[in-house]
Amino acid sequence: MGKSIAESILSGERLALAHFLTEVENNSPQSRLILDELFHQTGKAHIIGITGSPGTGKSTLVNQMTLRYRAAAEPKRVAIVAVDPSSPFTGGAVLGDRVRMRDLAGDPDVFIRSMASRGSLGGLARATAALVQVFDAAGFDLVLIETVGAGQTEVDIARLAHTTLVVEAPGLGDEVQAIKAGILEIADILVLNKADLPGAKNTERALKSMLGLAHPVEKIFRHHGEGMLIPENEPASTDQWVPPILCTISTDGTGVGELVTAIGQHAEHLRQSGEWDRREKFRLEAELEALLTETIVTQFRARIPDQLYNELVDRLVQRTLSPWEAVKALLE
Amino acid sequence: MGKSIAESILSGERLALAHFLTEVENNSPQSRLILDELFHQTGKAHIIGITGSPGTGKSTLVNQMTLRYRAAAEPKRVAIVAVDPSSPFTGGAVLGDRVRMRDLAGDPDVFIRSMASRGSLGGLARATAALVQVFDAAGFDLVLIETVGAGQTEVDIARLAHTTLVVEAPGLGDEVQAIKAGILEIADILVLNKADLPGAKNTERALKSMLGLAHPVEKIFRHHGEGMLIPENEPASTDQWVPPILCTISTDGTGVGELVTAIGQHAEHLRQSGEWDRREKFRLEAELEALLTETIVTQFRARIPDQLYNELVDRLVQRTLSPWEAVKALLE
Repeated sequence: MGKSIAESILSGERLALAHFLTEVENNSPQSRLILDELFHQTGKAHIIGITGSPGTGKSTLVNQMTLRYRAAAEPKRVAIVAVDPSSPFTGGAVLGDRVRMRDLAGDPDVFIRSMASRGSLGGLARATAALVQVFDAAGFDLVLIETVGAGQTEVDIARLAHTTLVVEAPGLGDEVQAIKAGILEIADILVLNKADLPGAKNTERALKSMLGLAHPVEKIFRHHGEGMLIPENEPASTDQWVPPILCTISTDGTGVGELVTAIGQHAEHLRQSGEWDRREKFRLEAELEALLTETIVTQFRARIPDQLYNELVDRLVQRTLSPWEAVKALLE
Repeated sequence: MGKSIAESILSGERLALAHFLTEVENNSPQSRLILDELFHQTGKAHIIGITGSPGTGKSTLVNQMTLRYRAAAEPKRVAIVAVDPSSPFTGGAVLGDRVRMRDLAGDPDVFIRSMASRGSLGGLARATAALVQVFDAAGFDLVLIETVGAGQTEVDIARLAHTTLVVEAPGLGDEVQAIKAGILEIADILVLNKADLPGAKNTERALKSMLGLAHPVEKIFRHHGEGMLIPENEPASTDQWVPPILCTISTDGTGVGELVTAIGQHAEHLRQSGEWDRREKFRLEAELEALLTETIVTQFRARIPDQLYNELVDRLVQRTLSPWEAVKALLE
């Protein structure tokens, strides 16, 4: 039974894939066995993280990128994982999904999966990693992980990727600019979407100077080729990737071709520099850590009698026991 | 030595407090002992979480609230914990801090602490909880936890609070509206800041209808008193809190008095309904879980030889071992 599910997925059956993804999200015991089986078939997909604040047009951009990949001379199979950690209750990304459905529905080589948060943060990261693994094994060439929001969770999830896109839009205030300094440091490619809006030039300028702060080696930029920015007075090095800023208008597709080219160049750079393997290792190590934490905490918790646990919580509320004293009591 | 630090903090020495907060953030072994000592003096502060997307003017709003609390007939001592999980690298909230310093500097009964992410998510939640505990013990009447962003982390941190404010601003697109449905469900009070901006009326309308979705019992709203919204055709019940929508302009303080009043009403409601105790219990239980997870994972990890761990990671990269097989090997 287990074997046949894995085989169905590996042979590209959509329905089997859809059913199995639900099991993976629910973390069913059977799904773990099948994931184990599929794992050995992974390591081929190019995983691309797309993150940025709400309202930057990420969903539309992801759509446009997918359309480009499908229309290429050698069309790629594309899986999209849309993660929305800010909707712990109602599930999210509803509007984004509707836009997606209109453009991409009916293409058998595109698969879209939306995921809202399922309780714990660790759980979401684990489920995302597992979904990516399934798509990789199922032969999708590209797995796009789109995260809504720009908090730590989104950063962590984006880091699952080989290539991380940070999407910005014009009209961000000073407050936002300050916040983004950290996020820029994880960008392999910076996308200024909605580049037709007023203030786009200002935002581009601000992003450039912030990118200078984030990557201090490359202080001065000049335009090069298709929107690529490389340090002035320095030859382009194959060892070092300078995150380019690319301007796009996702509603009409302007700049999306250049973006797709830059993503390809980044993959090439990763492979040639040995960075691809380093990121694979980092990613698998993070996955192992998450799985290990979840497992040992669950096992530990199962061994504690509910009565003892509740008693300790009551004493915490009464302030007769401190949290550390409670942990010590539980460890004994 | 430990005893004297706790005593200094309890007697309100700012320098001792500032030094100790740094130790708490660094999770030093000594800080845990002192936290244990301080814990027994906690449980008095009203903890208020303020969350919402970047650019909604949260920092300025928190400032204005603080100024009101300080100018009240019975002035309150206010501590502010500004959490910025989106700045894992450079530290953040720089501009917000500058604004704060100008308005609040020099007041000995206001204490402001900014915190960027320190590695793990769990670590951030733990550190925030610990900081709140220190301020509570040190006799601050109000502890305001301001989180930048609107992801799961921010939601989790906001849930540490007795009262959660969700701050919105006009001009949010449809995409954002969809995202926010989940966040609204955690709001005790909804603040529409920048209410003088164009589109404020539309946003207020949208928020009202979304609040109806989030709290389906209260389908129809009418204005009541100082911006309070209560269900139409229903008497205000003391058992049920209907999240009000309050309009503010934080730059000139409009509506902030009403907001502070609503926060006081919510605290009153929590105490009368028994909900205060329920939230205390929830908060302390979450703190215990976080501390327990951190402790057992750290202990477990310390027992694994680095060589074994690295070997397993290498086999993961080569795909000769799956993550579950690696976890099983580590558990043995």
